[in-house]
Amino acid sequence: MESGMPGMQATDAENKESTGIEYLYNPKSIAIIGASMQRFKPGGRPLKALKDKGFAGTIVAVNPQYDEIYGTPCYPSLREVPDEIELIVVSVPASAVLEVIRQGVEKGIKAAVIFSAGFAEVNEEGAALQAEITELARENGIRLMGPNCLGLMNQTNSCMASFAHIMDLEPVEPQTLAFVTQSGAFGAMSYLEATEAGVGFSSFASVGNEADCEVADCIEYLLTDPHAEVIGGYLEGARDGDKLRSVAERALELGKPILLLKVGRTGAGARAANSHTGSLAGDDEIYTAFFKQMGIIRINDLSELIAFVHLHRSGQNFERNRLAILGGSGGHGVMMTDMCQSNGLEVPEIGGETKKCLEEVLPPFGSAKNPIDLTAAAANDPRMMGRSLKVLSAAKEIDIVLMQGFIRDKESAQEIIDIQQATDKPIVITTRHAHEEMKKPLEHLRESGVTMISEGPQAPKAIADLAWYQRKVRRAQDDATNEVIVKQKAHPVADKLLNSDGGLTEYECKQVLADYDIPVTREELARDENEAVALAAKIGYPVVMKIQSPQILHKTEADAIRLNLASEQEVRDAYQEIIENARQYAPDADISGVLVQEMLQGGVEVIIGMTRDPVFGPVIMFGLGGIFVEVLKDVSFRVAPIKRRDAEDMLEEIKGHRMLDGVRGQLPVNRELLIDCLLKVSKLVTDHRDSIEELDINPLLIYPDRACAVDALIT
Amino acid sequence: MESGMPGMQATDAENKESTGIEYLYNPKSIAIIGASMQRFKPGGRPLKALKDKGFAGTIVAVNPQYDEIYGTPCYPSLREVPDEIELIVVSVPASAVLEVIRQGVEKGIKAAVIFSAGFAEVNEEGAALQAEITELARENGIRLMGPNCLGLMNQTNSCMASFAHIMDLEPVEPQTLAFVTQSGAFGAMSYLEATEAGVGFSSFASVGNEADCEVADCIEYLLTDPHAEVIGGYLEGARDGDKLRSVAERALELGKPILLLKVGRTGAGARAANSHTGSLAGDDEIYTAFFKQMGIIRINDLSELIAFVHLHRSGQNFERNRLAILGGSGGHGVMMTDMCQSNGLEVPEIGGETKKCLEEVLPPFGSAKNPIDLTAAAANDPRMMGRSLKVLSAAKEIDIVLMQGFIRDKESAQEIIDIQQATDKPIVITTRHAHEEMKKPLEHLRESGVTMISEGPQAPKAIADLAWYQRKVRRAQDDATNEVIVKQKAHPVADKLLNSDGGLTEYECKQVLADYDIPVTREELARDENEAVALAAKIGYPVVMKIQSPQILHKTEADAIRLNLASEQEVRDAYQEIIENARQYAPDADISGVLVQEMLQGGVEVIIGMTRDPVFGPVIMFGLGGIFVEVLKDVSFRVAPIKRRDAEDMLEEIKGHRMLDGVRGQLPVNRELLIDCLLKVSKLVTDHRDSIEELDINPLLIYPDRACAVDALIT
Repeated sequence: MESGMPGMQATDAENKESTGIEYLYNPKSIAIIGASMQRFKPGGRPLKALKDKGFAGTIVAVNPQYDEIYGTPCYPSLREVPDEIELIVVSVPASAVLEVIRQGVEKGIKAAVIFSAGFAEVNEEGAALQAEITELARENGIRLMGPNCLGLMNQTNSCMASFAHIMDLEPVEPQTLAFVTQSGAFGAMSYLEATEAGVGFSSFASVGNEADCEVADCIEYLLTDPHAEVIGGYLEGARDGDKLRSVAERALELGKPILLLKVGRTGAGARAANSHTGSLAGDDEIYTAFFKQMGIIRINDLSELIAFVHLHRSGQNFERNRLAILGGSGGHGVMMTDMCQSNGLEVPEIGGETKKCLEEVLPPFGSAKNPIDLTAAAANDPRMMGRSLKVLSAAKEIDIVLMQGFIRDKESAQEIIDIQQATDKPIVITTRHAHEEMKKPLEHLRESGVTMISEGPQAPKAIADLAWYQRKVRRAQDDATNEVIVKQKAHPVADKLLNSDGGLTEYECKQVLADYDIPVTREELARDENEAVALAAKIGYPVVMKIQSPQILHKTEADAIRLNLASEQEVRDAYQEIIENARQYAPDADISGVLVQEMLQGGVEVIIGMTRDPVFGPVIMFGLGGIFVEVLKDVSFRVAPIKRRDAEDMLEEIKGHRMLDGVRGQLPVNRELLIDCLLKVSKLVTDHRDSIEELDINPLLIYPDRACAVDALIT
Repeated sequence: MESGMPGMQATDAENKESTGIEYLYNPKSIAIIGASMQRFKPGGRPLKALKDKGFAGTIVAVNPQYDEIYGTPCYPSLREVPDEIELIVVSVPASAVLEVIRQGVEKGIKAAVIFSAGFAEVNEEGAALQAEITELARENGIRLMGPNCLGLMNQTNSCMASFAHIMDLEPVEPQTLAFVTQSGAFGAMSYLEATEAGVGFSSFASVGNEADCEVADCIEYLLTDPHAEVIGGYLEGARDGDKLRSVAERALELGKPILLLKVGRTGAGARAANSHTGSLAGDDEIYTAFFKQMGIIRINDLSELIAFVHLHRSGQNFERNRLAILGGSGGHGVMMTDMCQSNGLEVPEIGGETKKCLEEVLPPFGSAKNPIDLTAAAANDPRMMGRSLKVLSAAKEIDIVLMQGFIRDKESAQEIIDIQQATDKPIVITTRHAHEEMKKPLEHLRESGVTMISEGPQAPKAIADLAWYQRKVRRAQDDATNEVIVKQKAHPVADKLLNSDGGLTEYECKQVLADYDIPVTREELARDENEAVALAAKIGYPVVMKIQSPQILHKTEADAIRLNLASEQEVRDAYQEIIENARQYAPDADISGVLVQEMLQGGVEVIIGMTRDPVFGPVIMFGLGGIFVEVLKDVSFRVAPIKRRDAEDMLEEIKGHRMLDGVRGQLPVNRELLIDCLLKVSKLVTDHRDSIEELDINPLLIYPDRACAVDALIT
């Protein structure tokens, strides 16, 4: 990050190299290429907006038709511009863009916003042109936004590098939301709705085709922008999962929330794959898991972002969330209670002292239970709200008060303000269809910093989101002080086997696991019948026997497995049958031998797997084995590498997690051993990120005192 | 139903007796008791509204203070009123209500709306007074609405028996929604929002404490009211499940949709119970099941009702629902697609001829895939929407078009109207933040009957709701022609056992089941060791043996079950152990003997149960046995009696339903046998509704060719 840039945050200066994105958000000089006299054309809008809003740096126009445009000097081409230019805004046909960037290179520009459409979104020819432009820019250290985008608007320094009509609107204060969008039209609509709901934007970026600068790049910059208190975005898909991950991790350390409206949920299904894990990993499941893991808040609707910004602005702590619900309608209270509870918030019963105090201030027909119903009497006695609120704000059993904003006079409003100022407990006022008489008192509340959000399902959702986020931030800070569990050591066996050509047999897979201290069944490879008998005696009866061949992945299908062999004769017979069936099933397969393995019984079957996601790389899966995974698809995912907390969450997240606590009289399994296995698998697949395509340990048996991988597949 | 009532529907006259509710909705004469000169007091509002809106019948006021109120004759008491009065509207303190009703009895009134609060909602004293009033009314054939209610408002005949301020609003046309609410305040707010969104109400009833007339009574009347095309309601809980059921069944026959916002979802948990079924049946699960069964549409938010009314008004068929999504923003399209798919609607790919035709009308950067993105170009070329719509309305692969309402001129609007008039396919326009210039063209569309709803998640939800409802109506009509499967016959064994005192043993429970042709294990009761051996030989080895005692319900806990007994000696030993363990476990238990039972293996374990719901009576449960029910609570419910279709739905609804198709190489089970068992259980618990508290068949084993109840409990 260059120092001396206006508006740069000193705290994040560190020794990090500049990403160049600051020249998009924060340039000293701007040239509009293809500038227009027509103020409502894409080439006219930014020029007008830069002037109107008072951009403090250099502004020039480029268009061979004019000498000046409304007082801004205009040049025939970028070459002729005498000033130094950091950012160009390109509003010319697609076919002319490459030449503009060439001139930009000569001119030494740092960044370009390209409005023009007609690139990768259209056809292969467009994609090729886009690639050429991107390569040229990258070679010369120029950052690009777009093409095919609405551009960028930074309210805090009046950098209006956009042609969106939202630039013309009166900005809303305080400007705290930074928004990044993959859809220009949707972004502009979101801007409209959010500003109407009282949410001010610090910046707005439409990234279009993301030829160079993608959503994660913008977020990375915004982490350094002190005006951006909350980062919101519309995402169809991330380009670079690793980048988004590192940006999200940093955001969590900084405690700067990221909320993404991720769409395309139901579009792409799970991929075709050899492993269970692969076949279960749908795009949306992975995004959901990744967001949870990284502390990114997934929103379903813009209203949730709007409510979140208002809540977050309060600076209050929502981590503990036993809510009191206070309103003038029983129906409203019951509905709000449902919504709170379905978002995991508590609406506890109110009793004892609090109930007594409430009954004193409530009307005779009101309800002092939670939700608290003041009935229509609240309309006649405007101070009743304040009196009830006072009781609740003092109640030990309540952390947050969610109240309907039926405030009819300034005195009542002031009473609420006084109560909020005297307590740390969040007081959240919900409004809906404010009567004329309520508008002034509500405005007074808002101006005094009392939190107000729209009534509706988004209210409890946003409270739950903020609570989750604040806990996540605290957890991340706690974890930062903890050591990583898995010790660094050499893994020669795994290295050798995973770097060899061809597939691995189960026996080899288990050696790889064992090299990472993942417990496996006692087993050895028999190359003939006599060896099998000797091994069975050594391992102890009963044993399991399985064909070992890199070409035979489905051993059951080949009928080349025998279970529960209890005697020498059974082992001999099994050996013959297995070899015979395998030869019949796959005459050309290389057979390395027959695996003789201890026979395990009881325990809980689980599956630990890994598949490769095109965006996020290796993804770890956990689930209960057998029908749980086959019929119910009851599994959880996290992107590797995972932390201990992630592994704990994975165990909790599956619907059948009670199986681990011991059902039907069994003892609970040892969760620590299971978590260790997950962490070790994570280490294994991270170390060998490039050589492991898929991995399934299925089943791994887990007992009160032991974990053991029974079968494994690595491809 | 009395004939000759104004506004009564002849088609439903039948031979049905009048319920008297028509005197609430449709009286010839009204007296306001406690009428006030102050027009904004509860006693003043109805008088003013009746006059203002032009109620055609007799109106009188009752108040000892006046001789007339604004031209309406006023009498000191009801006794003094010279006219015949059908409906009184009571706005006096709670303590004076009983006397008013007494006078009403003398006067021969037919119905009363009681605004007054201070009854069952306050305390026991109030509840007693309410009960006294209700009894008096019932004895004299007077129907009551309230107390503690906003009253009733019938727009179609100007019967304004309410003090809600919503009466003062200009009514919205067409008046097709009849609304019934258990919360007055919530109802009034809903009225406001819905009318603002263009939904007109035919009537509005706030039922308050439901001392007499409850939500189901209002719905029953509304089924006969031709103005009520859609019935909406806010429900915290039904009083009489049977009544709601019969009303809902009738509504489904008539094809008149009922949409309920049911709140109190998360409040009450499952009841404490002996059976699995009982412990799994939470209030909300039962309501959800009941609504599905009866064709009642459950809404989560008022916006869903609003959208539904607009869609329903079109009179179009939404049963087939492959949607094309047409709009001016790629982001919007992707988001809408997500929402459609998560509501079970299809958004198929568009190919072949349709795609070619679309490409001809689309801008160069648009997308002819579904969702169809016209890009911002649609703003510049207002006719593009119409041209694309024309292609889609002709496309064989599309049933419904959902399009963004970016309509800027009258010609474009007319084009859409023409297309809609030329096709049966529903065209649904979604609007959001209409620009000033769009308002007139959109109004033109609306007036011409094109369906328009607000953009947002409620749009696809309402489409899915209507599609589901239309299919449900058709199914109900199909079913009406089908015979009931279970034949009428005598059940002497079940009658005798279920009417005996004390609990039933497993053996007796099985005899009850067998009497209803539910297949059970071959088994007989042994009273001594030798008999056990003889029975085992008769039944065939291996056998199972279990203690039989009405006092020992948990046989496993008593260690009084032995499985897989393969020889005479094993049977003898088992007999001794079982008797011994049972005596130790419960020294005072009556032991009827030891049950000797065939030992079944394989098959899929399911559970069929019944529990008694306080509202709906016997409720049938179906689930997969073992861990599915114990850990995952993966079960489905229906209120008894059930139909074949209900049983089919119950099988489909559980998450693990694939277990029935045969997993891990097993053959699919015989679903027909399973459905028969469910229907027979339904018959059993319906016939013995009063004597069976709970029933569990757990497990019932189901095979490709056989079903068999292995254990059963009836209490």
